[in-house]
Amino acid sequence: MQKLLDEIIDKYKGTTAYGAVANYIPELEKTDPNQLGISVFDTEGNLFQSGDANVRFTMQSISKPVVLLLALIDNGEERVFEKVGKEPTGDPFNSIVRLETFNEHKPLNPMINAGAISVSALIKGNTPEEKVNRILDFIKKITHNDSIRINEAVYRSEDLTGHRNRSMAYFLKDFGNIEGDVDETLEVYFKQCSIEVTTKDLAYIGALLARDGKDIITNERLFPARYSHIVKSYMATCGMYDGSGEFAINVGIPAKSGVGGGIMCTVLNRMGIGVFGPALNRKGNSYAGLKVLETLSKNLHLNIY
Amino acid sequence: MQKLLDEIIDKYKGTTAYGAVANYIPELEKTDPNQLGISVFDTEGNLFQSGDANVRFTMQSISKPVVLLLALIDNGEERVFEKVGKEPTGDPFNSIVRLETFNEHKPLNPMINAGAISVSALIKGNTPEEKVNRILDFIKKITHNDSIRINEAVYRSEDLTGHRNRSMAYFLKDFGNIEGDVDETLEVYFKQCSIEVTTKDLAYIGALLARDGKDIITNERLFPARYSHIVKSYMATCGMYDGSGEFAINVGIPAKSGVGGGIMCTVLNRMGIGVFGPALNRKGNSYAGLKVLETLSKNLHLNIY
Amino acid sequence: MQKLLDEIIDKYKGTTAYGAVANYIPELEKTDPNQLGISVFDTEGNLFQSGDANVRFTMQSISKPVVLLLALIDNGEERVFEKVGKEPTGDPFNSIVRLETFNEHKPLNPMINAGAISVSALIKGNTPEEKVNRILDFIKKITHNDSIRINEAVYRSEDLTGHRNRSMAYFLKDFGNIEGDVDETLEVYFKQCSIEVTTKDLAYIGALLARDGKDIITNERLFPARYSHIVKSYMATCGMYDGSGEFAINVGIPAKSGVGGGIMCTVLNRMGIGVFGPALNRKGNSYAGLKVLETLSKNLHLNIY
Amino acid sequence: MQKLLDEIIDKYKGTTAYGAVANYIPELEKTDPNQLGISVFDTEGNLFQSGDANVRFTMQSISKPVVLLLALIDNGEERVFEKVGKEPTGDPFNSIVRLETFNEHKPLNPMINAGAISVSALIKGNTPEEKVNRILDFIKKITHNDSIRINEAVYRSEDLTGHRNRSMAYFLKDFGNIEGDVDETLEVYFKQCSIEVTTKDLAYIGALLARDGKDIITNERLFPARYSHIVKSYMATCGMYDGSGEFAINVGIPAKSGVGGGIMCTVLNRMGIGVFGPALNRKGNSYAGLKVLETLSKNLHLNIY
Repeated sequence: MQKLLDEIIDKYKGTTAYGAVANYIPELEKTDPNQLGISVFDTEGNLFQSGDANVRFTMQSISKPVVLLLALIDNGEERVFEKVGKEPTGDPFNSIVRLETFNEHKPLNPMINAGAISVSALIKGNTPEEKVNRILDFIKKITHNDSIRINEAVYRSEDLTGHRNRSMAYFLKDFGNIEGDVDETLEVYFKQCSIEVTTKDLAYIGALLARDGKDIITNERLFPARYSHIVKSYMATCGMYDGSGEFAINVGIPAKSGVGGGIMCTVLNRMGIGVFGPALNRKGNSYAGLKVLETLSKNLHLNIY
Repeated sequence: MQKLLDEIIDKYKGTTAYGAVANYIPELEKTDPNQLGISVFDTEGNLFQSGDANVRFTMQSISKPVVLLLALIDNGEERVFEKVGKEPTGDPFNSIVRLETFNEHKPLNPMINAGAISVSALIKGNTPEEKVNRILDFIKKITHNDSIRINEAVYRSEDLTGHRNRSMAYFLKDFGNIEGDVDETLEVYFKQCSIEVTTKDLAYIGALLARDGKDIITNERLFPARYSHIVKSYMATCGMYDGSGEFAINVGIPAKSGVGGGIMCTVLNRMGIGVFGPALNRKGNSYAGLKVLETLSKNLHLNIY
Repeated sequence: MQKLLDEIIDKYKGTTAYGAVANYIPELEKTDPNQLGISVFDTEGNLFQSGDANVRFTMQSISKPVVLLLALIDNGEERVFEKVGKEPTGDPFNSIVRLETFNEHKPLNPMINAGAISVSALIKGNTPEEKVNRILDFIKKITHNDSIRINEAVYRSEDLTGHRNRSMAYFLKDFGNIEGDVDETLEVYFKQCSIEVTTKDLAYIGALLARDGKDIITNERLFPARYSHIVKSYMATCGMYDGSGEFAINVGIPAKSGVGGGIMCTVLNRMGIGVFGPALNRKGNSYAGLKVLETLSKNLHLNIY
Repeated sequence: MQKLLDEIIDKYKGTTAYGAVANYIPELEKTDPNQLGISVFDTEGNLFQSGDANVRFTMQSISKPVVLLLALIDNGEERVFEKVGKEPTGDPFNSIVRLETFNEHKPLNPMINAGAISVSALIKGNTPEEKVNRILDFIKKITHNDSIRINEAVYRSEDLTGHRNRSMAYFLKDFGNIEGDVDETLEVYFKQCSIEVTTKDLAYIGALLARDGKDIITNERLFPARYSHIVKSYMATCGMYDGSGEFAINVGIPAKSGVGGGIMCTVLNRMGIGVFGPALNRKGNSYAGLKVLETLSKNLHLNIY
């Protein structure tokens, strides 16, 4: 495995040049685009790493499935799906056109920004600080990494430039989807996006999902298998933005990407995978990261379909 | 397995009363809503059946992945995806709203009606008859069933009432997506929807996909594994209309439903499954069929996520 | 007046070069783009003409208000507005986005294609021929011109290439808006678009509307003033496609344009105006025709706002 | 005239019961729904009033054309239309569906909320206070009424509940349409909506527009006639929300309504009209106010079409 990872990283290191780091959040533009790293944590507890596996980057959209897990733990399934839809696409069999994002006055699913903001508003806590700390504590626990923290510069940058997200949050507020204060909800959302992790942390979370909620080190059940199924379903159907369909064909495993350059993957009963490559393709996914995962999937026969 | 299937059919037979047969195509309304049947064909060649497994019903949307397979065989991947998109949802990471069905002047994916009509237009043949016969021959071959035929009454009913599909086809024609005659393309499309199968036929096709294109009886490779991955990806991400997300959570296997009451499923290296229950839920999927598959998935640990 | 018209035509004759004849209907492409003509028929019965006032061109969208008049005569106001909406824009005070064309299962208004097709379906007659003849007879009567006829080459061209209109008609049929046969309805619609007129004919119709339905020559009332108000309201608010707002500012009179290059205008108690200039701007309105009307409106203080 | 107004108010006073005061802004709900009043100010300087003509109410959307006038004075036509579209409906001759409100990254026109927010951002001033005072001073001048002021309770209520407007403003900010601070822009917008006027004030503004910018009392030109044409065009084509088409048919004069219950009308060279009736119909227009204007238009032959 180690040899395979080294070969793959070595092979695709150069393809980072075909992508570009996210520039809509000014802080992210400062990232070195040539980085590429991978961590694989298998369900027997073995960790393999290669390349820039120790570099910290912000989770961005990868926080969506993780915070969804916590929201399910905090509220139960019924309450969560009062606020957000269940469908990747919402394609009624007879529609010609339709709103994509909002349906029956709730966001389509928890992987799009509007849905993720709805979900953030559901995290327990009386203040944004309490909610954010609750998210941080949860991520520390599932990654076995106490050093997890927020990148304050990225957070401030997201807060200053997040007009589109602010627009969506007020739209949600307007029809009663968000019950609390909009600015406080956005503080939680922007901060969860700004949590820094390494590929190792992502591999740990992926492996926990691969065991449907049973911690690999302690063997403790951290959440019901049902919540794991929910989260992995979204990763599989709409975890890679506009590239989800192509990823399902080429790689074929549940995965979630973020514009920070990370991708978190999970393969049932086998492994979690974390990849980092901040140079993105036009759809917002790591350019080299996709190549790495495609090759890994072929070599290890990971495709679940 | 036989005992399990009998128990499940017996248990959910009564739930057919909670659904209703499709009524937008008059011929379909004549179907007995209380029917329920299942066939399982495993990759070792064993067939298990229970309930109304010998009843013929029309494929309707289940023809979409099958005709997509044939279009890939006839045209190759590149040509097919010039005409139809690859994405289940097309959710750009920064959109607020957008057209769902049409994107860059092509239908979003081959599982929605517009996309399926585009795909039908790609089947080889100089006349609608040649194209339809080519589809019939392909289905006969992959089901090992020479008696496959079109239900002419359903076809005529679809043709007479298919104004929405006709509207979409002319829309496709308008921006050059369909090259041939619109009426001829619709003849092929309406006829493929009207092909009659049993759950056994669906189980055979599902098992062929479970072996990624290798025939279980002859061991012959009928199409490249890549085409199988493509088709199963769409089944997994958007095969169950508006209920695809919920199906992924509750059942977790690639599947395609039709308003005729059928569902075709495939589980990698394990089995194909055909279910028939014409009483549908509000999303157009077999009401009792979903219950059957949910229970089967739990009992046999089929969930791939 | 004659001198003014001659000066204006002379002044703007050259600006036809900035536009282009419609090319989406092949027959229209054959038109000489440099033509420009005007007819003014005042409510005292004086006719003034200049430039290419005797050239025949097809009415295209200018047929919409005329056929709406006849549909109102044939069916009454209530019946017509069961099938088509009354609003130029349908801008609810609290919407962010919304379908433009279809609302409550009927087209937004009779000036868009979908609405005009709905209206055509309402003309009395058992066959397309009867309906078309009824329209022709009506136009002959209100123009005092018995030589009015259909340009068959343009009709065939519209019929062959009208995929978008066909798509809309089937969409209307799908939700029950069109009661009869779609192809027959489209035959009427395409033929009404292909009726040939001169600027004089348009000036006559405009003058009749300027007298709210009282024929200037015979003094006979041809329809209730109410119907005239309805038709002129649509001309004023949405008669010039996407250029209606700008036209209201710059010219400020009820008008309807067609992609054949014609514009029909009406000024209450004063005059009807017909303009012809087949070189269109990007919004589908006669390039030079707009210039002519802007100057005429300033000189004669026609702006009604 | 006085007798006519008294008769009309008397006749329609009772119809206020068919409407309901706006309830989405809590402060507006406290209004007495049975009020009905009218002021007519003719271009010879005569004022006629009847009913509740001295009651103060907030301008709400009636501020839109007035602030547009000031924005044109402050910035010129070109600059204003860089930020907001010119079209009531934006109906391209070949579209099936399309976004209504946003087009080419600018709001469709200045009469919809998004467009009006864009326009507010253009008023001269370094602070919201300066901008609001500039608007107040302008309205004091054109109404000859120094007592014009903001209803602070309504302003606070708008600010607290204006999530939809806030959503739109951040959406505008996101694509660069609003250059300044969003909260400051909304402060201006919510305050302009909360300016209190009487029907007399509206009649004065309407009469000023009826003389295309020449003050009736001082005979001073306050703005170019072109700006008057622009503002009246929008009033004519989209001044009455979703009821603009029906209003054009039934009344046929440029008008702007607000959810405070006011309607401001203008008839070229003849008069300005202010109406107040806070009980609204479902489209947000004064129920009894529409009846009053319909009858007045018929009696005085005001319809301009």
